[in-house]
Amino acid sequence: MKVSLLRCSRCGRTAIYRRPYEGIALCKACFLRDIEERIRRTISKYDMLKFDDHIAVAVSGGKDSLTLLRILRKMERRFPKSKLTAVTVDEGIRGYRAEAVKLAREYCGELDVDHVVVSFRELFGRTLDQIVRSKKELSPCSYCGVLRRRAIHIAARNAKANKIATAHNLDDEVQTILINIFHGDAKRIARVEPVLVDPAGRFAERIKPVCEIPEKEVALYAYLTGTKFQTTPCPYLTTALRNDVREMLNRIEEKHTGTKFTIFRSMERLRNYLKLSIGAAELRNCRGCGEPTTQEFCEVCKTLGTTLRSGSV
Amino acid sequence: MKVSLLRCSRCGRTAIYRRPYEGIALCKACFLRDIEERIRRTISKYDMLKFDDHIAVAVSGGKDSLTLLRILRKMERRFPKSKLTAVTVDEGIRGYRAEAVKLAREYCGELDVDHVVVSFRELFGRTLDQIVRSKKELSPCSYCGVLRRRAIHIAARNAKANKIATAHNLDDEVQTILINIFHGDAKRIARVEPVLVDPAGRFAERIKPVCEIPEKEVALYAYLTGTKFQTTPCPYLTTALRNDVREMLNRIEEKHTGTKFTIFRSMERLRNYLKLSIGAAELRNCRGCGEPTTQEFCEVCKTLGTTLRSGSV
Repeated sequence: MKVSLLRCSRCGRTAIYRRPYEGIALCKACFLRDIEERIRRTISKYDMLKFDDHIAVAVSGGKDSLTLLRILRKMERRFPKSKLTAVTVDEGIRGYRAEAVKLAREYCGELDVDHVVVSFRELFGRTLDQIVRSKKELSPCSYCGVLRRRAIHIAARNAKANKIATAHNLDDEVQTILINIFHGDAKRIARVEPVLVDPAGRFAERIKPVCEIPEKEVALYAYLTGTKFQTTPCPYLTTALRNDVREMLNRIEEKHTGTKFTIFRSMERLRNYLKLSIGAAELRNCRGCGEPTTQEFCEVCKTLGTTLRSGSV
Repeated sequence: MKVSLLRCSRCGRTAIYRRPYEGIALCKACFLRDIEERIRRTISKYDMLKFDDHIAVAVSGGKDSLTLLRILRKMERRFPKSKLTAVTVDEGIRGYRAEAVKLAREYCGELDVDHVVVSFRELFGRTLDQIVRSKKELSPCSYCGVLRRRAIHIAARNAKANKIATAHNLDDEVQTILINIFHGDAKRIARVEPVLVDPAGRFAERIKPVCEIPEKEVALYAYLTGTKFQTTPCPYLTTALRNDVREMLNRIEEKHTGTKFTIFRSMERLRNYLKLSIGAAELRNCRGCGEPTTQEFCEVCKTLGTTLRSGSV
């Protein structure tokens, strides 16, 4: 019996991956190069970076953020005026976050990148576990999302970074789009985008260089580069609608290859129409903490249910 | 052991249905009244009908269309100047459509409603089975959708009806919204709406009075009223993305009650924003058949791949 090996569509060596949505196969070297090249294309297409940016990279310790850090570090070496700072948020999730912080610290050491850890306890006076125990109205992910975003912004500001890079991959973005639709949050669709600019200029610009790479390929990249990443899922994950949406999207993608990309593009067009008619929201200072917000109190103050002193959050 | 029966939340009699998204239970009489009342509210909310409308009701012979016909007939009795004509399209699907046409004919007889049958063969010169055999680019549902819509419009025009009522239920509409997103068809989202007006006034206005009733409740209504409807699914159904989207939505609805309604409302808001920025498409006459279209040739002529004589289609 003759066993025929799958060959790399680019160089003819033994392939290690079949990419269904392009109908090609890739060897290890060509796969790694391809992912880096595609991230570079995303950065250039959305005009994400300048040669002298100081980028705060949000590093959770998972496969996505460590991959992002690795690739940005590789790119940064070619731009002597640029700078990277890795930021890890310790939300205070017992039995979960400590391992991730350790992995992030080690990886930053390996890549020779400055590493900053900020915690919910230190910034907001309590851990996520404590918040979840005392508040039941929203899902843990809703509280965490609002506070983590603010924590990263504060860390970036303290480090004097002018950009924040997060490792949202294609699956994350497409899930968020559907969740917004499922929640009836039509306006938020316009805010799921590769580059998020604060019109008031008080928060650093947020960029998502991995937003066009499927989750599976980010995981493969991390695996092939020998990256040690956290594999334990967050203990709060099961409570989230996101989990069901993820499963459902994977099932549909399996039968209808390319659907995730199509949804991403579909929303890109929709976003442009939406922006035309919604227009930019007007920002003012939160009466609680003084940070920019579109409402009287910002989401962080509403989440914490407190009126915080200006500047402390 | 004491068995406690579920009681109707409205009248206290034995309930036959628990409605998860409202947390209530209903007896048979209250359920039937509730569905009719809700359809009446949808009609009034979207300003679907006037007292002297002549409505062509698209009747396939399935549970949805027979239920719609029954309820409209009940309402029509109170408006002596209104008129109903049931329209059944025979697409030419061997082993499937004949039964439905028979069921539709019998039900129209029972309700004393005029019934017209139009066929793809007579209007377009070939059956759906023949089209599917000769054309492979699109799914059978894509061909069928375009031609069936036209067939209903022609039948309505011939019957001098000024409105066309179709029995799209909540599930149908929500599935279509997601399919448009999955297909990258953002602009089409703006066209999934309860009332569709042809700006040129050459086609009758299309209304969807059942669009706010979940499929399950339409089925229960048909069952409780003893309606004999076709239960065989269309033999082409398995090839469609719609099938996967239906399953996925039902799974999510089961765990997150009310999601279908939320998506419907979410899209209602989105549609308004979209309409603001897209604006109305300009219509001209199709070079093939003379019917109104936004392009050089209408979808029907493109589907058939022919240049048809004006007026024949």
